[in-house]
Formats: sequence, C-alpha cells, structure tokens
Amino acid sequence: MSEILKEVLAANQAYRKNFGDKAHLPMPPGRHFAILTCMDARLDPAKYAGLAEGDAHVIRNAGGRASDDAIRSLVISYKLLGTREWFVIHHTDCGMETFTNEIMNDLLSSSLKTAALDGNGWHDTGPGPGSPEGKYINWLTIKDQAQSVLEDVKRIRQHPLVPADIPIYGYIYDVKTGKLMEIPEATAAGKVA
Amino acid sequence: MSEILKEVLAANQAYRKNFGDKAHLPMPPGRHFAILTCMDARLDPAKYAGLAEGDAHVIRNAGGRASDDAIRSLVISYKLLGTREWFVIHHTDCGMETFTNEIMNDLLSSSLKTAALDGNGWHDTGPGPGSPEGKYINWLTIKDQAQSVLEDVKRIRQHPLVPADIPIYGYIYDVKTGKLMEIPEATAAGKVA
Repeated sequence: MSEILKEVLAANQAYRKNFGDKAHLPMPPGRHFAILTCMDARLDPAKYAGLAEGDAHVIRNAGGRASDDAIRSLVISYKLLGTREWFVIHHTDCGMETFTNEIMNDLLSSSLKTAALDGNGWHDTGPGPGSPEGKYINWLTIKDQAQSVLEDVKRIRQHPLVPADIPIYGYIYDVKTGKLMEIPEATAAGKVA
Repeated sequence: MSEILKEVLAANQAYRKNFGDKAHLPMPPGRHFAILTCMDARLDPAKYAGLAEGDAHVIRNAGGRASDDAIRSLVISYKLLGTREWFVIHHTDCGMETFTNEIMNDLLSSSLKTAALDGNGWHDTGPGPGSPEGKYINWLTIKDQAQSVLEDVKRIRQHPLVPADIPIYGYIYDVKTGKLMEIPEATAAGKVA
C-alpha cells in the first residue's frame, strides 16, 4: 500500500469519528447553488466560499471550463437537484495558461512521462514512447482568465437546456490572497434574462 | 445581490484573513495525487481524504465519472503537473442512480424547471417550454456503484494517454458514515501494469 493511500485512509478514519449529523443530510444541496471551478490543488472551494457538507454542488475540471461534461453536471444540478444560482470561478496562475493544444500534443507524442517547464517552455524529460492520441482532445487551454470566465458564462447562459432564470456569476480566485474577484462583464452576461 | 452571493463573499473575506503561507504554494500538487469524485454536496474530498490547500488535484462531475473531460483533466494532472496516483471515488445514495437517459430526456423535453422525485418516480412540476436537446447528451447514469467504479477505473487504465505506471484506486464513499470503502476489483484493474 502506498504512503499516500495509507495517509488518505488514516485521514478518512479520523474524519468519520466526528461524522455526527452529516449522516442525515439529504441529496439536494441545502443552499441551492453550484460552483464550477478548477481542479488546481491550491483551491479549496469549501473553504474559499464557505461551504459545509450538504450545501452546494462543486464541479471541478482542468481550468474550471464550461466543457460539455460540466454542462451535463450543471443541468443535472438544477433539473433534478434544484440549484438556482451558479458560479464560474477560474483563478490566477492557472496551469491552463502555460500551454496550447499544439504544445500538449507535441509533448504527448514524444513521451507520456511528466514534462517540465523552464525558461524555454515545456519539454519532455522522461523516455518515450508517446502517443498521438492527444490530437483528438481539445485541452481547453486559457489565454486570458477574464476572457475565459466571460466565454464560459456565456456558453452556459446560451445552452438550450439552461433556463433563463438561473443567474450565473463570473469570478477569478487569486491564489496569492485567496480573494474572489468578480468579472463584471461575465456576471452581466450571466444575469437572469 | 442575492443572499447566497453575499454569504459566499463574506465567507471568502473571512478565509482571506488567515491566508498566510498559502500565498506561496506552487502550482504542482505537493502530494502528487489526484481524486476524481462526484459533485454531490454531501462530499467534501478535502475533509474526507485529508487534503490541505496545495496537496492534490480534485476533479468533480455528476457521478464522479471517467468522462472524456475527466480524462482530459487527469492527463493534464500527470503530464504537466506530476501526479503519480489517482483515486476514483463514487458514493452511496448518488443521484445518478435515480434516473436513465430516457427519463432525463423526457423530463427536459416537457420543462426546464426543476423536477421532483416521489414514489412514482421523477415528474415535472414546473411549466414548459422544455427542450429536446437532452437527447444529444449522455448523462452517464449509474445502475450499480461498484460496477461504475470498476468501469471508470478500467476506462482510465486503458486510455492511450495514461501511462501504465500510475496506480488507480477504486473506492465508494458512504454518505451515512463518511467511510471510504475500497472496491477491490476496481483497484486490481487499476494497478500498475
């Protein structure tokens, strides 16, 4: 058993000891909202947005992007589980700003091992073989965070399965301060029609 | 400004006050692992698995499914940010067990408003119009949690962009007790080749 697995199971055992009333939480989010944000390790949406267990849906992927899968999750969130407000929260210093589809596909073509980033950009460090399969994936990279939040809020707003009466708020989380900074154009684009 | 938005921003302000050393966390996860789990409001992976900010990537969607988008995120997680172990964690009493593609598409076709579940199954409560667009989405529903964990671990293991030397662990989180329960067949299917 790996050290990480041991640590996770030990932490889980400690968590269960004071589980208490959480056993009775219902399935629908008690505070009726959902957050779409990045998988970045520095982000803890429960902490940065003040969520207790049972409060809100949290959807996370690389970049916090409004991918088809994030929209699948959001539609389930309101249609079956009654959320009524949504947040799209990207963040500063995001890994998605450090590469392009072309860079990622070149890296994966030469090796599947972890690459390294230095002053000359990304480069492979491990041996091959790689795979050309990266070409079939859109990595949803980001050039400008305010723009990506705006685009993602707009994409959700315009989706035919998203009702007009759900407000969508656009924010960027600052990894240096913990602050949620509104992107007013995004929140405006996400307002109830 | 909605009450939820006020509460989130107030919680964020409180969080920032003791932000401290977190300002200096690097982008790559310090403990080199990633968790794929469900968006369910009752789940807090940071709490149930013992994560501090900076420790691990957390990917979440409806069901914690190994969707194409989750695989996009996992490949970025190891290829660019160096994770070396992955967890797939579904959970008991998951909303994804309560419907099928057909049920969801029928509900969305009649109304976009939130539906209700009772002894007769799901039914629409709000007025239409609905949309036929649900037919173009695979909702990735779940019939059996142990089976869905196994399938998802296998799907990740077999993906051509996932190297053979990343172990993938399969677990179910019990929402009544907080316990992480291993699915041995899934972990076996996800072991290093």
